[in-house]
Order: sequence, then C-alpha cells, then structure tokens
Amino acid sequence: MRELTVWAPHARSVDLLLPDARHPMSSGEDGHWHVTVEAGPGSTYAFSLDGGDPRPDPRGLRLPDGPHGWSQLFDPGDFDWSDGQWSGLELQGSVIYELHVGTFTPGGTLDAAAERLDHLVDLGVGLVELMPLAPFPGTRGWGYDGVAPYAVHETYGGPAALQRFVDAAHARGLGVCLDVVHNHLGPDGNYLGEFGPYLTDTHHTPWGSALNLDAPDSDPVRRWVLDNVQQWFRDFHVDALRLDAVHELHDDRAVHVLEEMSREVDELAAREGRRMWLIAESDRNDPRTVTPRGRGNAVGGLGVHAQWADDVHHALHVALTGETQGYYADFADPGALEKAMRSPFFHDGTWSTFRGRRHGRPVDTASVPGWRFVASLQTHDQVGNRATGDRISASVPVGLLACGAALLLISPWTPMLFMGEEWGASTPWAYFTDHTDAELGEAVRRGRRAEFASHGWDENDVPDPQHPSTFEASKLDWAEAGEGDHARLLQWYRSLIRLRRERRDLHDAHLDLVRTRYDAASGMFILQRGEHQLLVNLGEKPARADAYGTVLLSWEPGVELLDGALEVPGQSAVLVGV
Amino acid sequence: MRELTVWAPHARSVDLLLPDARHPMSSGEDGHWHVTVEAGPGSTYAFSLDGGDPRPDPRGLRLPDGPHGWSQLFDPGDFDWSDGQWSGLELQGSVIYELHVGTFTPGGTLDAAAERLDHLVDLGVGLVELMPLAPFPGTRGWGYDGVAPYAVHETYGGPAALQRFVDAAHARGLGVCLDVVHNHLGPDGNYLGEFGPYLTDTHHTPWGSALNLDAPDSDPVRRWVLDNVQQWFRDFHVDALRLDAVHELHDDRAVHVLEEMSREVDELAAREGRRMWLIAESDRNDPRTVTPRGRGNAVGGLGVHAQWADDVHHALHVALTGETQGYYADFADPGALEKAMRSPFFHDGTWSTFRGRRHGRPVDTASVPGWRFVASLQTHDQVGNRATGDRISASVPVGLLACGAALLLISPWTPMLFMGEEWGASTPWAYFTDHTDAELGEAVRRGRRAEFASHGWDENDVPDPQHPSTFEASKLDWAEAGEGDHARLLQWYRSLIRLRRERRDLHDAHLDLVRTRYDAASGMFILQRGEHQLLVNLGEKPARADAYGTVLLSWEPGVELLDGALEVPGQSAVLVGV
Repeated sequence: MRELTVWAPHARSVDLLLPDARHPMSSGEDGHWHVTVEAGPGSTYAFSLDGGDPRPDPRGLRLPDGPHGWSQLFDPGDFDWSDGQWSGLELQGSVIYELHVGTFTPGGTLDAAAERLDHLVDLGVGLVELMPLAPFPGTRGWGYDGVAPYAVHETYGGPAALQRFVDAAHARGLGVCLDVVHNHLGPDGNYLGEFGPYLTDTHHTPWGSALNLDAPDSDPVRRWVLDNVQQWFRDFHVDALRLDAVHELHDDRAVHVLEEMSREVDELAAREGRRMWLIAESDRNDPRTVTPRGRGNAVGGLGVHAQWADDVHHALHVALTGETQGYYADFADPGALEKAMRSPFFHDGTWSTFRGRRHGRPVDTASVPGWRFVASLQTHDQVGNRATGDRISASVPVGLLACGAALLLISPWTPMLFMGEEWGASTPWAYFTDHTDAELGEAVRRGRRAEFASHGWDENDVPDPQHPSTFEASKLDWAEAGEGDHARLLQWYRSLIRLRRERRDLHDAHLDLVRTRYDAASGMFILQRGEHQLLVNLGEKPARADAYGTVLLSWEPGVELLDGALEVPGQSAVLVGV
Repeated sequence: MRELTVWAPHARSVDLLLPDARHPMSSGEDGHWHVTVEAGPGSTYAFSLDGGDPRPDPRGLRLPDGPHGWSQLFDPGDFDWSDGQWSGLELQGSVIYELHVGTFTPGGTLDAAAERLDHLVDLGVGLVELMPLAPFPGTRGWGYDGVAPYAVHETYGGPAALQRFVDAAHARGLGVCLDVVHNHLGPDGNYLGEFGPYLTDTHHTPWGSALNLDAPDSDPVRRWVLDNVQQWFRDFHVDALRLDAVHELHDDRAVHVLEEMSREVDELAAREGRRMWLIAESDRNDPRTVTPRGRGNAVGGLGVHAQWADDVHHALHVALTGETQGYYADFADPGALEKAMRSPFFHDGTWSTFRGRRHGRPVDTASVPGWRFVASLQTHDQVGNRATGDRISASVPVGLLACGAALLLISPWTPMLFMGEEWGASTPWAYFTDHTDAELGEAVRRGRRAEFASHGWDENDVPDPQHPSTFEASKLDWAEAGEGDHARLLQWYRSLIRLRRERRDLHDAHLDLVRTRYDAASGMFILQRGEHQLLVNLGEKPARADAYGTVLLSWEPGVELLDGALEVPGQSAVLVGV
C-alpha cells in the first residue's frame, strides 16, 4: 500500500488514476489531497481534477511518455549506492565542467556520458555540471524549457540513469552539479496551473508568468521548489545545484526563497555530513547573493555559496576577440581585463551601455573569497546564443585560446569549462529545439531568424533550431581531441588544471592579494598570484618582461628565464613560479 | 539671468515658455536641455516638447494654478530663516504627531496650522508630521494622488508657507516631518511621462505604473527622487521624511534606491550638522529596511532610520475593539498584544490569513532599538480607510482609549498620534477627494461605495468622497478639546508624554528588556519598563495586581498601592514607578 498526495487547493474533487482504476482522493488540510492504494514501482498514474483529463504529478520523478503523458512511480531509495565514503568536495581549487547530456556523446544519454568520465578525471576537473534534465516535449533541447522539475528527461535515461551517473562520478572522485530552473516553466506541457497558483502575474519574467513566490497561496509553491532542491541532494546525491537566472525568482517577501533554500541545504549538508553547494546564475552583480546569512535574527545575505560572474567572461572574450557588439561594448575599456582579474563585477555601479543605466555594486574584496565566483571563457549561453553557435575557437588562433585558458585557470575565480573547450572543439554548439507543438516550433524558428536578421545576419546563415541537423552538428567530435593543435591545447588545459590544484598560490582566493599589470601597447598582461606569475602576451610580437623563479609551463617551447627576465612569444602564455 | 534645465531624453526640441516669449533650449548631455534667460522670482514658465502644449516643470517648486497650469519660479534661498541654532532632535524619546493640513484647522492652510503649534508644544510631542503637500488637481484630498513632488499644494499656501511653518515649529522646539510619495503618481495631471521614462511597466503597483528605478534611462529618474529628498532637508529645513509605501518602490538593482537615499541623507546631515531622519512606511515586515548600511563595500541593510509598524496598531486596535474583520483577523490571537509590545512585527514569518501566506521575518531584538519602529493607535489610514472614517473613540469607552494611549506611549516604540486623538475627537476623518476630472470623480465615488457595499455596508451610509461636506466634517472641532472627557483624555495624553520624555525607563529602547504579562481572563495587561510598571485593565471589573513603588499616574482617581499590590478599576490604567 502506498499513499499518494497532491496539492490542488481550488479543486472540488481529485481522482488518482491508475491504469485499471480511478480512486477518489480525500481532501486534507491546506488544499492537499490524499489516497492510499495498491501500486508498486513502475506503475503509471495520473490525476484528474474535477473530473478533467489525466494530468501528470507535479512532483513526479518519471515521465516515461514525456510531459503530456502519465507519471510513473519511481522510488529513488531503491538504488544501491556505492558512494558511502563520498563526502563531497571543496569549491575552492575545483574546476567545473559544463556539459549537455544530449550532445556530449553520440549516444546522448547519461549512461553514455558516464563512459566519458575518465576523460574528465584525466583533465583534472572536480565538478561535472549537467545542463537541465527536466523533461520537455520532444527529445532535443537545451533544457531551459522544462516543465517537470522533479523528473529526469526520458531521452537521457530517466531518473535511474541519473543515479547511476552520480554514483559513477563519485567512484572516480568527481562531484556532480545539476542545473535547475525554477524561475519559469516551459511554454508546452505545463499543467501546473491547473493544480494550483504555481504562477503569478504580479511579477514578470522574459519568459512569461513568474513563479508565485509571494502572492496568496505561495507557501506550497515555495515548498515545491525547496523540496525539489532537497530531492536532488538527498535522493540523487548531487553535490551542487546551479540555479538558473535567480534574478527572475521574483520574491518580495522579507525572507527571499533563496535564503530559505541556502538554509535548508546547509542544514541537510550538516545532517548528512557531506558538502553541498548552491551556485546561482544572477544578472544582478549583487554581492548580497553570496553573502552568508545573518546569525540568528540578524540581517545578512542570501547565503548562496557561489554565483556566476559573466563580466569576467565578457572581459576575456573581448580581450581575445576584439568583439564589441551588444553587451560586450563596455568591455572594450582597456582596464576591463585587469579589473576582471581582481573583482568579479566589472559593472560594480558603473554605467552599463547595454542596460542604459548604472549597474551592480562592488564586492568587498577584503572579505569575500574569489572562489565564490564562477568564471568562464565559454558557456552554453555565450556560445549557443550566437547566431551560428560558433565557439571562440572559430574566431581566434590557438595561441590566444591558450592565453584565455591560462587567464581563466590561474584567476582567483572558480573556473568553468564548457564541454569541448579543452581541445578547442571545432564543432559549433547551436540553439536547437524539438518543439512538438507545430505552431510553437515555427514561432521559435522564425523568431530566431528574425532576431539575427535584425543584427545584419542573412537568415539562411542562421541554423534552423528545429531541424535535427542543428542538434547533430552540435555533438562533440571526440576523435579530433587527439589531433594536432586540439591535442596540444588539451594538454595545456590538463597542465594548467593540475598546477592550479597542486599549488596553493594558484587557487588562493584572497582577492586583495591579486596583482595585475597590463601594457595595452604590447599586449602583455601579467597576473601575479603569490610567488607565481602568469605572463600572457596577447600581442602578435614577442614581448619581454621581468620575472623571477623558473618556467613551470609555456605554450611555446624554448622559453627561458635569463637574468631575471624572459621573452614571451606573441599570442602565448608562460607560467613562472618558485 | 538664470539658467533653466529640464530632462527630456527623447524630445527632438524643447522650448522654454515665458509669459511673453518662447525660448528654444539647447540639447546637452544625457538628454538634458538648457537655456539662459531673463526671468526673476515670481515669473511663470512652462516647457513645450516638440512644439506641444505647455507643461509644468517636473522639478518646479510652485504651481500657482495647479498641476495643469504653468510653473512659477520660486527661490527657496530667499527665505529669512530664524532657526540657525536648530540642530534637529532625536527620534528616541520623541512622539510624532500626524496632521493633515486641510482638516487640522478651519482655515486648512499651513499658516493656520502654525497657529496651533503651541497646542502641540503643550501636548509634548516632538515631531509634527505633515501629510503629503504635493499638488493635485482640485483643492481637497489626502495628498497621495500628488503629481508634482517638488512643489507644495497652492491651497495650503505654496512653498513659502511651508518654509514659514518649519521656521515657526523650530522656534518652538518642534521638528517637522514631511510625508512624501515617490512610489507612483496620481491619475490626473501627470505629465512626467511626456518628458521621459519616469514610469515603467516592468513592475506593478496597486495604483498603476511603477516609478522607473531600474529599467533603461532610470538613472535620471532616481536622481529626480534623490534630489527631491535633498530639497526638503536642505531648502525647507525639514527634520524627517515619511516615505510612503516603500514596498512599492520596485527596484531590482544591487543598490536599492532607499540605500542610496539613506546614504545621501546621512552625508547631508553630517555636512549641515543637524539630525535628519528617513521613516519608511513598509508592508514587508522586513528588518533589513532599518538595518544600517554595511561599512565600505560590505553588504548591510537599507539604512533607513525608522519604519512604521502597523502590526502594533492592529494588535492594539483588536485588543480594544474586538474587531476581527479583514487584516485584523490574525490579531485576535490572545498572544498578539504581548508580542506587539516586545517585537514590532507580529507577523515575523507567521501565517497571515489576509495575505494567504507566511509573512515577515523576526527583528533581532537584541540589537535593534525599539525607537526605529513607529507605532500608533490611530493613523490617517487606519481611520480614513474605514467606511465612515470613524475613529476608535467612536467605538470604545473613554477608559479604553486611556488604556490604549498608555500602552502606546509607554511602549518601546516611537509613538505617533493622529491629530485629535489626544482628546478623543468626535469628528470623523473620512476619505475625501476633489477630482476635477468628472469621470474620475464619479469612478472614485462609485468605487468607494461598491467596495464597502461588498462588505455589507448600505451605500448611503458611506460618505461621498467628492462632496465638500465629507471634507468639512473631517475638520477637527477644537472647541471640544476643552470639554468633559475630551479634556480629561487630553490631560492624560499630556501626562503620559511628559513622563515618557522625562523618565529614561519609559523611552528605553532595548527590546530584550521589555517584560509583559497578560491575564486574558481578567483583562489585566502588565508592561514592565525597567523599574516602572504600566498596569492596564482592559476588563470591565476591577482587578488586583502586585506592584512596587508609587502610583505616578492613574486614569481613575483614588488608586493606591497597599502592601505591594493595587486594585486597578475596570477599563483604566495605572503607571507605577520608583
């Protein structure tokens, strides 16, 4: 016997549907309905509200037929974990590796991805970040249009495959971070509004109605978010969650849902005796996000452990490519790269041309450690939101890629790589969708082309997101990783990550100790990290610089320290240490 | 010669209109237009955008013909101040007195109000709070539909009258607090949107479009708010601003406009060497509002100095009247009154029936002083938003009014009285308007009646807000202040305020030192403040209590301490001290 419950505060009747019977549910407190039935793991089920059509469970873990179909009972406790000794990992010193399950391998499943974990171990990263796994209609997609945050996309293998993946990662000493989206629900397959006021029109998001976090009846909606967060840590043993676009979690309460979330996660971590991390994506440039909560009733920050720092990406990207369109404009400032190595927010109260206003606030670099900020040279967004999904490796010579990698991996931030970046993958990573609603698919196809046409693109050069070939072309070509410059770059990444992990100077997080010097004329950028110096020559010509110690790593061969100085070849980097 | 400027970022041409000429303005930086002309104080002027109709100055100080007319040049520096020795006052220990200029006196002007200041000196209050003075079309109104925050309603006497009022108050040792509305603009006479994006649809308020604090082009809008705040302190010598409904100042930036505001006000106060206070009305129950800003770049609170605590009002109101409709429902909790005397937020994370969700967060009572919270037994809202504008004195016997006054004035909060409360005014204070737009007037009249009809009222019993008699009936009847129970109550208020001011125990603000004891059966509520005890008998029968010291004040005569105990007559209060 098993009790099933569902929240449906405005329903007059709710039935549990099993394949062979309809069971009326009893109305309990606070709009929750209950029924106890004979149903074992694997049984499909659905709910009927006021006698309506079958709807999947808002808290269901498996949707074998996708978001429009019935749910399937799944007991996460049935899995036989082998990670009893695993106690998590520290973010400081770790490198994150972002991957999209559907395009990481030819197979496009979690099991196929698990077969590539040894590559990540060799690379030296610590935390594998999986782009969203929540089901959406169709098979191909980035995952940000998910509609069932408790479940795992069946195409990827469903919830059992995620447990296997996490277990396999832990067996290799790798942590797993899951990208979760709570700020909105996708446009197709979203039946939550039929169950209750999950969404509200008192706030806007760029994607439509906002999640109801502060309007009437929002307590159970918050609980639905918070329980989902707990589910991943507790039942799937994930080590971190990457919280999508938290600036769109509109919550005017005195206690923001992120603060409740960080408190619950910290309490769970203490109970379970392992490390658990929340990493926010935030557009606010607001240090309050990663400021610890106040003790007792004192006012403090939101207590999220880390957050993305896109400004660092922008500064690196502009320094390497010279691009200045859109939100890159302000980063043409010759001081941008230096600032981005010492302070996570380039916009810390400064004018943002893109936003038409001042933006951000300074981080207290004396007290906030650098590891709380996740920085990148590539991310799914920064690559995939370009017209053709071309990576930075398509625009700049490999020497500059090596320079970018060195700046990122020797920076005081927590570096994150995007799958394939480590070998300068030649494959694009484009915007792809598989909307099964024909009208929606056509709207997305046209919208995408119109958007880039307005920026001067020929529509025919913009891949059709709905076409399977756009998805297929975005899959990594693993064979190239062993070839020529790809293999050389891969070795460079491995060496940098190893040195970063092994040497305290290189993952020290005291921001006030970071020193930078940039000579825009020659293109020589020097990043001092304790007794280590990274010398990055972004110019085309060789440039000399003073240095002390020994050459630990050089992109170009034959670089030597002579009389306290060395010559760095054009578009290359050298790491010197004692 | 005088330079006039105006911000109009999207205009192609702007002309300054003077009575006898049209002067084209020059476009400067950031959308500001300039012109230098011959024009002296008293000259009327207006702007014409792209050749359009004359519009008043968004930063104009005087509107002699109301918001639809031209502005008039007014030099605040021309006033001959006599308050050179004035350095402001402390909030701790002070009592605030809220008044509406139009109904405080028969004359309804600032000059007429100034003639009553001696009454306030005798009463013993410290800070006179003026309901909003910003111009609106028509003559009668509460003032929350103002459209020109830089100006003073001509009916009240215009800006010069405000300077005279403040100077007269300071001469008597009284401070002045001005109620200012920045969260929205009234429905009639708002031309700001023609000048620039002052308003935004990315956020909602209950009154329509929100002020644009974080969307593109919002920097000059914030400056318009912040400069207005500085104007009142600097040019009008006010001592405090009461910030209307700050929870509707929607601002998603990392630095909230309230934080910028409190920083600027503190800096101005330091420069001018006198006390300046910001007092927020906030519905959030969020202690962050009054938490000091962080030092340097550290994250802290918004730094507003004090905020209203409506929950204290609700607890007092319900304890005295037994009313439980609407937002009073949760305050029927027998522990509500005790909690309201120790913690400013009854809802500190607890369930709010009215909101359909949990609400608020606890105040750190160990560190936050009680004077940061402004508490009341009556306010313009709590009286005027009732169907007939009846005061609490219309519902309960005078003995209970005395009990309420004692609880309020011996509480750890900063007490605020609403004009006439001190003598239990028999005059109502109703919702009155004077919309000159006939359609709007009719909509308000019908809306008001329909609202209360939906709560069971006979429409004919709800006063017509547009009718002048509703305004006239809301004026105080000063003659009654000297009569019978009115005079007795007035003396009670005077005595309580005097004792509160004189005795440190009674204005001590350490919340963790407040002790309460409530016997719901007898109705005896005991508030211990240091070595003082307030014994309030809300029941109808006499009740005994232990006490020590001497009787300092008793509502009923003949109350004496005998053998460490006293008998408090029904519906009366006794203050005992050493």
